[in-house]
Amino acid sequence: MTTKPERLFPPLGWARDYNRSILASDTLAAVIVTIMLIPQSLAYALLAGLPAEMGLYASILPLVAYALLGTSRTLSVGPVAVVSLMTATAVGNVAQSGTADYAAAAIVMAMISGLMLLLMGVLRFGFLANFLSHPVVSGFITASGIIIALSQLRHILGIQGHGDTLIELGHSLSQDLASWNPVTLATGLAATVFLFWARKGLQPLLHRLGMTAEAAGIAAKAGPVFIILATTWASYLGDFSARGVALVGEVPQGLPRFTAPSFDPQLWSELAVSAMLISIIGFVESVSVGKTLAAKRRQRIDPNQELVALGAANMASGVSGGFPVTGGFSRSIVNFDAGAQTPAASIFAAVGIALAALLLTPVLFYLPKATLAATIIVAVSSLMDMDVIRRAWRYSLSDFIAVVMTIAATLLLGVELGVLSGILASILLHLYKTARPHIAVVGAVAGTEHFRNVERHNVITHANLVSLRVDQSLYFANASFLEDTVYRLIADDENLEHLILQCTAVNEIDMSALEALEAVDHRLRELGMTLNLSEVKGPVMDALQKTDFLEHLSGRVFLTHHQAVQALKPDEIEPYIP
Amino acid sequence: MTTKPERLFPPLGWARDYNRSILASDTLAAVIVTIMLIPQSLAYALLAGLPAEMGLYASILPLVAYALLGTSRTLSVGPVAVVSLMTATAVGNVAQSGTADYAAAAIVMAMISGLMLLLMGVLRFGFLANFLSHPVVSGFITASGIIIALSQLRHILGIQGHGDTLIELGHSLSQDLASWNPVTLATGLAATVFLFWARKGLQPLLHRLGMTAEAAGIAAKAGPVFIILATTWASYLGDFSARGVALVGEVPQGLPRFTAPSFDPQLWSELAVSAMLISIIGFVESVSVGKTLAAKRRQRIDPNQELVALGAANMASGVSGGFPVTGGFSRSIVNFDAGAQTPAASIFAAVGIALAALLLTPVLFYLPKATLAATIIVAVSSLMDMDVIRRAWRYSLSDFIAVVMTIAATLLLGVELGVLSGILASILLHLYKTARPHIAVVGAVAGTEHFRNVERHNVITHANLVSLRVDQSLYFANASFLEDTVYRLIADDENLEHLILQCTAVNEIDMSALEALEAVDHRLRELGMTLNLSEVKGPVMDALQKTDFLEHLSGRVFLTHHQAVQALKPDEIEPYIP
Repeated sequence: MTTKPERLFPPLGWARDYNRSILASDTLAAVIVTIMLIPQSLAYALLAGLPAEMGLYASILPLVAYALLGTSRTLSVGPVAVVSLMTATAVGNVAQSGTADYAAAAIVMAMISGLMLLLMGVLRFGFLANFLSHPVVSGFITASGIIIALSQLRHILGIQGHGDTLIELGHSLSQDLASWNPVTLATGLAATVFLFWARKGLQPLLHRLGMTAEAAGIAAKAGPVFIILATTWASYLGDFSARGVALVGEVPQGLPRFTAPSFDPQLWSELAVSAMLISIIGFVESVSVGKTLAAKRRQRIDPNQELVALGAANMASGVSGGFPVTGGFSRSIVNFDAGAQTPAASIFAAVGIALAALLLTPVLFYLPKATLAATIIVAVSSLMDMDVIRRAWRYSLSDFIAVVMTIAATLLLGVELGVLSGILASILLHLYKTARPHIAVVGAVAGTEHFRNVERHNVITHANLVSLRVDQSLYFANASFLEDTVYRLIADDENLEHLILQCTAVNEIDMSALEALEAVDHRLRELGMTLNLSEVKGPVMDALQKTDFLEHLSGRVFLTHHQAVQALKPDEIEPYIP
Repeated sequence: MTTKPERLFPPLGWARDYNRSILASDTLAAVIVTIMLIPQSLAYALLAGLPAEMGLYASILPLVAYALLGTSRTLSVGPVAVVSLMTATAVGNVAQSGTADYAAAAIVMAMISGLMLLLMGVLRFGFLANFLSHPVVSGFITASGIIIALSQLRHILGIQGHGDTLIELGHSLSQDLASWNPVTLATGLAATVFLFWARKGLQPLLHRLGMTAEAAGIAAKAGPVFIILATTWASYLGDFSARGVALVGEVPQGLPRFTAPSFDPQLWSELAVSAMLISIIGFVESVSVGKTLAAKRRQRIDPNQELVALGAANMASGVSGGFPVTGGFSRSIVNFDAGAQTPAASIFAAVGIALAALLLTPVLFYLPKATLAATIIVAVSSLMDMDVIRRAWRYSLSDFIAVVMTIAATLLLGVELGVLSGILASILLHLYKTARPHIAVVGAVAGTEHFRNVERHNVITHANLVSLRVDQSLYFANASFLEDTVYRLIADDENLEHLILQCTAVNEIDMSALEALEAVDHRLRELGMTLNLSEVKGPVMDALQKTDFLEHLSGRVFLTHHQAVQALKPDEIEPYIP
């Protein structure tokens, strides 16, 4: 068991057993992650509409903050695709991309989002993430991936074009299409094709060229770095700038400076709703990655402590000139596969990025934006899971509706309304289903004390009683449905003397449902029948005993349904023996 | 069984058997209801901030429309307290009370609300009403009653004063208190005291004076008419107008004229949300009254046809100069008690009100508004049910929170936010509860095949297996809670070989929960354990069979939990007999 201080400050746990072998693993992982993070950080800053250096800044202090507070051993925190897109959408509503106000608003967004996550963690609101169902998350990430890929097309084509939805993007891109730039397109296409090929083809090639399989695997991760170096070199030699290719340009050299983000109350209130959505999406993405990795090594993560750690990481990003960050899927997998043992690997990676910010920025001047766009397109293509639609369709209608609603709303209305529609749709579908519960007439399976649906099994029933199994808790949304169902069932059968409700699936009876049961009991009594309950669960019985319902009940409460039927079934007629 | 045409046009059912005896009952009931409706209609028009005649107009055609389409035999439709208050609040946001625009907006409100109800009926959205739980409805009506009573105090005191919330009303009343009018107060107090007394004391008094008990009961219903005549007469003789008493004043004589309501799109969109709330509240109130009355005579009502009928009644109100109407509690009880057999009684009552509009309006000139305020206060006092707070407190925390939230929000934020808060609170509380379901470890009750919670019952368990009963459907909101619970349970017990999930209470497994179960299965397999399911319901099994979950399951699916335990429990060690 983990102790309390260790739960609040996880390094107390893992630092105790730190040794040279773990240090070696962590260092190797850090080198690989750093090489991967440099192009990713630059690319996601571009996606968020921000200067390239902010991508680096968001990959230094936040990594350290998460390493000190997070419960996942191998999660890698930093800018990620979906959160960067959401940041661009939200900040784009309050400032013009490319201005100082825009960058300042993105920094504020990291700060607000950090405070919200921290607060949710302190209040132990981690369970909120549960209301994002898997189909909604898959659908949202897939649709966001499409929006992201489409938004990067303009950098590949070398045109203007912007928008938050499929229609806006399509319209804007088609309008500017005439002004495409051949050198930009050639660079972007080359980079995209190379990166797609490198994902599968680079490792075997390097292996065939004589590297060990492991070394080839690690070197293949450097594919994005290779294409960045190659296109930067081409751009420098070929004077791409003069040929109309958009370059990253001047990137300030050095480490981020600590600054307090703006505390303009109007800006804060304008960004608050978006910050909430970014926080929740970021949290869900991060926790699902963290859980997946933890499960592989029999470790556990604590969602509420994760909220605290992600909150701290975002606040660290906010005070050091970064933008919203979270635990990313691809970077964490790389960290894990490269053998990272503890969060120290992330601290070493932060040092690596800091060195890059100090030393490498002059090189980035000539880097074509088309190359970064290519890395984004290739990265998000692996997040997309269109198959979720087919799986949901096969499995259940409500999951299908939820996933289709989420994808459609995200594509057509943008990321924020998309995720909200998904959450709302899944909650409403759940309520709709529970409002019309499955209610089965049951009978005994011969030779057992077990009762099953008369329509699905060959079971024994009795003429004077009807056994009803309600497959749902009884609460306000389905109280009158139960009443109506009972009345319909007993309306046409004059032989009935007893109704037994088998309450195995009834986990709660709220006040509305209690009133409905009282109405049923009253009605049955008037018809000369009794209402009986069986297999009532402990917590439900506790609640009923606080009322006078059981005193007035026309029938009885039985421990088992079998006992109820034995007690109420017609008396056997004794064979006449003269 | 009712036939299809009869379901859409209920008079086809009841008119067939109409005879002289039913006619006599219906006529008597109509006379009594008419006498009661006249003061009520005037009073609720006053409450809604509208001219008195609109109350009469809202009590003619709507009654006929409901009588022709409604499924309740005895429901009486017309202006009611809560809906009138909601109309005043909503219309007050778009126009100044007392202006022609205000009256026009109230007419439009009836029209929009009618169309919405009709649409909901055609789409069979009657189940929506289920999302208003009993505690929320009780709390809302109680709090509305307080607001209504307080808003009528100004008419009793003869002062200005207005507001939609407790604070606004209290503030406004206390500011104007100095300008109170002694004659108005005397009239209002006398009327209030008389009406409160008359509810209990008038019938016995008349009986003692020689009337039969039945006739006295009927005559006692005329209490409000008596006080209206008495104060009107006093006002005429005493020249109350000159003494500063507010009178009803000129009421146009004659029947309402048919007019098309305004179709100003801006006005329609401004009123749409309020109209939706008024429609839902009106529908819920009406259906609950209708159900109560129908149950007493073994009749049934059809919620979706009720929506159509109420929609038609409101549209009829809209085209004949009325305001939103619904089925009222007190008037329907009077109609029922007076012996109404069929909706024809309501048609006769509509004729009675029409005659009053033709003949009696000159008399109303001298009627003090204080008298109408007194009838409102006495009427709403019987709707209030403060005891619901105590009952909810004793029964369950979530019902208590819902009712307190509803009352507090209605009093402090007004009726519209009040009812929305109530609905939202009850849905969120339900989700919160289902997100953290009750999960019990179970064992066999000795001598039965029945399994119960080990913490509540003395049961038999086995060292190599753990039986878990999940008391909830498995869906996205509780999927990770289940995972966490299972991992916690198995973490400390090295002897475990099998986990059996008893699925009696699992009515659904959605995609998110299926993924969680797959994760659990995977984890158990890694630990050398098996995951087994028992008593899986038909619909759940159908869904699981569409996936490959069952093929990969580490354990098995058993029909009964008893069979599962028999199959998996440790082999008995044979006693050694040499």
